[in-house]
Amino acid sequence: MANRQVQISSLPEGRLEPSNFELVSTPTPEPGDGEVLCRTLAVTIGAGQRAGLQGSASYAGAPESGRVMGGSGIARVEASNHPDYTAGDVVRAPTGWQDYSVHPAADVSAVDADADTGHLLGPLGTNGLTAYFGLTDVGQVAEGDTVVVSAAAGSVGHLVGQIAKAAGASVVGVVGSDQKRALLTDELGFDAAVNRRDDGFRAAFKAATPDRINVYFDNTGGPILESALFRMAVGGRIVCCGAVSQYDTASPSGGPRGVPGLLVNNRVRMEGFLVFDYADRYEQARAQMAAWIADGRLKPRVTTFDGLESAPQAFVELLAGTTVGTTVVNVA
Amino acid sequence: MANRQVQISSLPEGRLEPSNFELVSTPTPEPGDGEVLCRTLAVTIGAGQRAGLQGSASYAGAPESGRVMGGSGIARVEASNHPDYTAGDVVRAPTGWQDYSVHPAADVSAVDADADTGHLLGPLGTNGLTAYFGLTDVGQVAEGDTVVVSAAAGSVGHLVGQIAKAAGASVVGVVGSDQKRALLTDELGFDAAVNRRDDGFRAAFKAATPDRINVYFDNTGGPILESALFRMAVGGRIVCCGAVSQYDTASPSGGPRGVPGLLVNNRVRMEGFLVFDYADRYEQARAQMAAWIADGRLKPRVTTFDGLESAPQAFVELLAGTTVGTTVVNVA
Repeated sequence: MANRQVQISSLPEGRLEPSNFELVSTPTPEPGDGEVLCRTLAVTIGAGQRAGLQGSASYAGAPESGRVMGGSGIARVEASNHPDYTAGDVVRAPTGWQDYSVHPAADVSAVDADADTGHLLGPLGTNGLTAYFGLTDVGQVAEGDTVVVSAAAGSVGHLVGQIAKAAGASVVGVVGSDQKRALLTDELGFDAAVNRRDDGFRAAFKAATPDRINVYFDNTGGPILESALFRMAVGGRIVCCGAVSQYDTASPSGGPRGVPGLLVNNRVRMEGFLVFDYADRYEQARAQMAAWIADGRLKPRVTTFDGLESAPQAFVELLAGTTVGTTVVNVA
Repeated sequence: MANRQVQISSLPEGRLEPSNFELVSTPTPEPGDGEVLCRTLAVTIGAGQRAGLQGSASYAGAPESGRVMGGSGIARVEASNHPDYTAGDVVRAPTGWQDYSVHPAADVSAVDADADTGHLLGPLGTNGLTAYFGLTDVGQVAEGDTVVVSAAAGSVGHLVGQIAKAAGASVVGVVGSDQKRALLTDELGFDAAVNRRDDGFRAAFKAATPDRINVYFDNTGGPILESALFRMAVGGRIVCCGAVSQYDTASPSGGPRGVPGLLVNNRVRMEGFLVFDYADRYEQARAQMAAWIADGRLKPRVTTFDGLESAPQAFVELLAGTTVGTTVVNVA
C-alpha cells in the first residue's frame, strides 16, 4: 500500500512556491506496540508554518529537506495496537501532509466522528484555541474593550473577532482586501474593518479606533503592529501571536518604532505566547467554542482545497492572502 | 526675597546643552490657604526628564520655554498655612529647579529631618521606587533568576541590581565604561558587568548570560534592548522603564529587531510602567529599602553637584553617562 507524502524539497528563498515541495510515494508505515496507523482525512495549514521553513530554528525546530511537511489533521484509525483505539475511530493527529501516518496513542485524541471537519480543524482546533487563549488569557479582554486584530479574515483572526464580540468588546479588523472587509462587517459581526492596502490606511485606522485600543491581537507584526502601538490606550495589551508580514520574505523588516517608548508612556504590555502551553485547558475552551457555534455567535469560515497534491498551492494562496478563515485540505 | 529659578529657555535640538536653560531671578511666591512655602535643599535629576524636553507630549506633558524646570526635591518648610506642617519641617516636594516653591499641603510629605538627602532622593525616592516596583511587580523577579539591567550604574540601575541580589537573583549590569563596570562587580555585588562600548560587547554579553535572561530591566532601549531580546529565556520578562539611548538625540532609531518574533517563540512579556501608578504602596517599599540599607544589602551611590546654578551642567553630565548612582544637586 503506497503512502503519498508531500515532502519539503528545498527551503524557499523569498516567497514560498509550490516547487519547494514534491509529492513522493513511500511505503505505508506499520504501527508498533502501543501505536495506531492513521489514514489522513484532512489537514489544516496555518501561516505560522511558513516560519518553520525559514532555515533558522523556530519553536517548531529547524526544517530539513526530504522531510514530510508537518501539520495537524483529522484521521481515521486504520489499525491499532493500543486498547484505547479501534479501526474506524476518528482522531485528531499530527498527521503531516501524507495519506498514512503512525503515532503513539498518546499523540492522538478521539473526536466525534460526525463532527464537521472544518469545525474540528478551525474553532475546535489549534487556530481556535490560539484565538481563545490569546484573547482571554494573554489579552485579558473585558466587556467594553476596543479590540483590534490583524489578518482579521484569517484562520485565527476571524475567530478572535467573534470571540471578542462574545466577550462584549467592540472589534476592528485589519485585512488586505475590500472583499474581506465586507465579510467581516457584513457577515461576521465586526464593528469595523480597514484595508491595510488603502492609501488612507493610517487615517482610517485612527478613525476606526476613536477610544484607542485596549487589546491588539497581532498576527502580522511589521507596519500594522507599529500603527497599533501608536493607538494603544493606557494599560493596553498587545497579544503577539504571529508575524505573517515577516514570514514569506528573505529580508524581514526592522522592529516597530515606539518600542519601548510608547510601552512606557502608556503602560502597555506586549506578550508572546504559544498555544501548546495551554494544553491542560483545551477541553474547557473547546466546550465554550462549541457552545458559541451552537448558539450562532461563532460562525466558522473555511476555505477548502481538494486532494493532498493541492496542499502546496493551498499554502501559497494562504500566504498570498487569498484564502479566508481556516484553510483545510481534504485528503480522503 | 528673590527666588532663583532655572528656566527652560529653548528645547534642545540634538544633544542637551547648558544653554537650553537660563538662571532667572523671580519674586518668591506667597503660600495661599492650605499651602506651604518650601525652601529647596536639594533636587535629583533623572534621565527620563530629558524625554520631557523632546517637544512632543510625553507622560510629563508638553514642555514650554520660560517654564521653571521640574523635578523632585527635598525642602524645608519656611511658612505653612496648613495644620499638618510647621516652619522647619523637612518634606519631599515637587520643587523644581528653584530656591522657593509653594505647594498645596497634599503635594508634599514629611520626611525624617535627620535622614541622608542622598538616601531620600535615591533608594527612598522616585529612583528607588521605580527600581523596586519595576523589578518585583512588573519583572516578577524570583530566586535563581538571571537579571540583566542596562544603564546599570545609573540612578535606577544601580538599585535594580542590588534589589535583584537581595531577591536571590544573579545579576549582570550593562554600562558604558570600565570604571562603572568595576564599581558594579567590586563594590555593589553584581555578578558580572559588560561595557556596551567594547568591540566585543555582543560576545561578552552572551558569555555573561549562559543561562539566558529571565528578567531584563531596560533603561536604555535601542541596541542593548535588541541584544537582550535575543538572549531572553522562555517565559522571560522585559521591564520597560526608560529609553535613555533615544532621549538625547534629534533622531531616535528604529525599533528593536526581534519584536514580535522572538516574543512569540520564547513567550516573552514586555511591559512598560510608570512608578506613579504604585503610589499607594510607596511606604511599604520604602520600609523595605530602608531595612536593606540598614543591613548593608543596599549601598546607595550618589553623585552630587553644588549650587542651583550647576543643575544644567549636572543634567548634561548625567546624559553623557559620567555620573554614577543618583544625581543630586544641593541647592541650600
